[in-house]
Amino acid sequence: MSNEITAEIISIGDELLIGQTINTNAGWMGDQLGLFGIRPKRVLTIGDDRQEILDALGTAQCDVVLITGGLGPTKDDITKHTLCEFFDTHLVRHADIEARIVGFFQSLGRDPLDVNRAQADLPANCVVIPNDRGTASGMWFERPRPGRPGRVFVSMPGVPFEMQAMMLAHVLPKLKEHFTPPTIVHRTILTTGLGESHLAKRIEAWEDSLAGERIKLAYLPSPGTVKLRLSTYAEANASAAYERVHRKAEELRRLIPELIFGEGEERLSQVLGRLLRERGQTLSLAESCTGGYVSHLITSVPGSSAYFTGGVISYANAVKMEELGIPSDMLELNGAVSQPVAEKMATGVREALRTDWSVALTGIAGPDGGTPEKPVGTVWIAVAGPDGVQSMLGKFPGRRSTIIEGSALAALNLLRKRLLA
Amino acid sequence: MSNEITAEIISIGDELLIGQTINTNAGWMGDQLGLFGIRPKRVLTIGDDRQEILDALGTAQCDVVLITGGLGPTKDDITKHTLCEFFDTHLVRHADIEARIVGFFQSLGRDPLDVNRAQADLPANCVVIPNDRGTASGMWFERPRPGRPGRVFVSMPGVPFEMQAMMLAHVLPKLKEHFTPPTIVHRTILTTGLGESHLAKRIEAWEDSLAGERIKLAYLPSPGTVKLRLSTYAEANASAAYERVHRKAEELRRLIPELIFGEGEERLSQVLGRLLRERGQTLSLAESCTGGYVSHLITSVPGSSAYFTGGVISYANAVKMEELGIPSDMLELNGAVSQPVAEKMATGVREALRTDWSVALTGIAGPDGGTPEKPVGTVWIAVAGPDGVQSMLGKFPGRRSTIIEGSALAALNLLRKRLLA
Repeated sequence: MSNEITAEIISIGDELLIGQTINTNAGWMGDQLGLFGIRPKRVLTIGDDRQEILDALGTAQCDVVLITGGLGPTKDDITKHTLCEFFDTHLVRHADIEARIVGFFQSLGRDPLDVNRAQADLPANCVVIPNDRGTASGMWFERPRPGRPGRVFVSMPGVPFEMQAMMLAHVLPKLKEHFTPPTIVHRTILTTGLGESHLAKRIEAWEDSLAGERIKLAYLPSPGTVKLRLSTYAEANASAAYERVHRKAEELRRLIPELIFGEGEERLSQVLGRLLRERGQTLSLAESCTGGYVSHLITSVPGSSAYFTGGVISYANAVKMEELGIPSDMLELNGAVSQPVAEKMATGVREALRTDWSVALTGIAGPDGGTPEKPVGTVWIAVAGPDGVQSMLGKFPGRRSTIIEGSALAALNLLRKRLLA
Repeated sequence: MSNEITAEIISIGDELLIGQTINTNAGWMGDQLGLFGIRPKRVLTIGDDRQEILDALGTAQCDVVLITGGLGPTKDDITKHTLCEFFDTHLVRHADIEARIVGFFQSLGRDPLDVNRAQADLPANCVVIPNDRGTASGMWFERPRPGRPGRVFVSMPGVPFEMQAMMLAHVLPKLKEHFTPPTIVHRTILTTGLGESHLAKRIEAWEDSLAGERIKLAYLPSPGTVKLRLSTYAEANASAAYERVHRKAEELRRLIPELIFGEGEERLSQVLGRLLRERGQTLSLAESCTGGYVSHLITSVPGSSAYFTGGVISYANAVKMEELGIPSDMLELNGAVSQPVAEKMATGVREALRTDWSVALTGIAGPDGGTPEKPVGTVWIAVAGPDGVQSMLGKFPGRRSTIIEGSALAALNLLRKRLLA
């Protein structure tokens, strides 16, 4: 559409150019802008260099110019001074911000240096944007344009944690007020268990029906999961758009209930934590090929000690026998990567650790160890619970790390389905 | 210096702008260019849009312009056609490349489509760069300039795995031949155990001595480790530069031997694997607060089953008692996060799994569970071996994930030091 609002991102920092830091900010900002109805059009990454910054500001053509980086207290941070030059202004000390900086350092038991206090010096003609997580304030500048909202330049710190909070709490709402972009209603549905192309085939007819509802679908794949994002422009009455998206999301839930594990930013390990807490139940793990990765996913969730008691990593067969009670003839007869061993690992750890549920994995993560019958990527997964043990055979493609990741998520999803059954 | 060779990267792809894919290519390329004596000056990320691409090519000013993305077989991949337009040329079919593409698909048991064969159509006036890992060829264009080597434009696929192989095998050597940039000699030394600022203080005098040797030092921090990269321009005789860097690296080794765990791209878990293999020794783990993350690091290394037998994740106290033999009165008297418990976890798992070495961790990863005496980030680490048990108390700053990562690396480093003692 011709009256769309466009944005350009200028990422400043030598460390980005030489690969010392990967520019994750630009992608995050682009995603957020899109959700607010603003189209990210280009990202320019440059060094901490006065002339490069001036050139970038001078040639920017989008409605919104978001600048990150170069706001630290050290000599090589020159963004603020260069902005003063570009916007033909000077720095003024803000007493309230200085007091906040002093307080911040004192809370760490340290005295601020002059360079720290100087972070309270800000361009006279900008609107100061508060930094709720650090000492470098953001700056909002406007350049008037005839007949439409002025072009906006916003300078923010490059620390992702600080920039993200500033964007969400202050910059995005202010941009919405300034430009009144079309409202976009969106909903992100999280799936696991099918790759992108197989998933697309499975929901093809449903996807075709979205056009009639003016809903766009995006596939956002990452190892082990595919996010499906539904989005639509809202009419004057936004609730009608919510209703349209909601209806289609519910249709999808009925179509692939076993593949959907959550919505939004939730992770599968968080969903499991919620389900186990609700039920007041506990979990233990027995891992072979995943070597602790499933436990790591579970324990990455704060508060997981409420339902996770522990686990056994049985890399060697001796550990499978002694810690999990796998009979040696079972290992000899079936091999370590087999259904009976996976199931016995699950029941063994469940009994030893006396939990309500247990999950076990045994497989071949590669690159070595594969055979024609059991190639690399073969993984047996078992879940034991109050109502018995259940298992599945997975074949995971890719490299060692991808096989570990894919089988871990499949195991968590098998447990999720059992909890909900 | 005024005769430096500069480079600009143009990253093409809608998925980069909307944050679906993070632009990791640009940082990797910048790092590699730097090692070849070419300075990365800017990165421009744009969508799959003809006019945007033409504008980016037209305004490029560096000696080298590296372009990635938009070379796939689908309709929205327009980079190749736009390059033809910019360089005023047309596509010609390369029979040898077409045969390679057909063979690639047949090896997967599939027939290539016309759009796949069309990847053998390449601009008439470019030098074709082979893609050893995929079907999209690279393209090398030159624009003559009076009195110096012509400006070079190179178009490569956006898939990191393909682009990296193409850069290393073909593009970087060809750039070196074309521009003869100064040779840079570098060496990267890997440290763990001290944060960037404390490390800098510790090696201050040594760092000051580098200038006299015309050696530059870069700190490359990531969670738990700091890489120190020494680099220098080589004289006509490069071996003198190697000698200068070698001498300073050896001085550093003598200065902080306990902090250095390796060189180059090696990870601490790989170093440990090498040390254990050399000694024909085995390892087991007992993890509490790290919840499987140390095991995950160890088992991420291919072939780790040769020395890693397994471990116990003792999240709950009951598991500490039953699986690791921690007396209940020891837990009551000292608390789970204590030196005796950490040491008993280490000796307990070492005995249970009958390994030469064991590592144990018990601590408070947060966000809850801290007390004034044992705040969040308090972690006891113990290593048990043939010559007894040794332990240390760590205080790790930051969030849950940072505490888990930091304490895991500290534990691996404690084991490394014991193995080398």
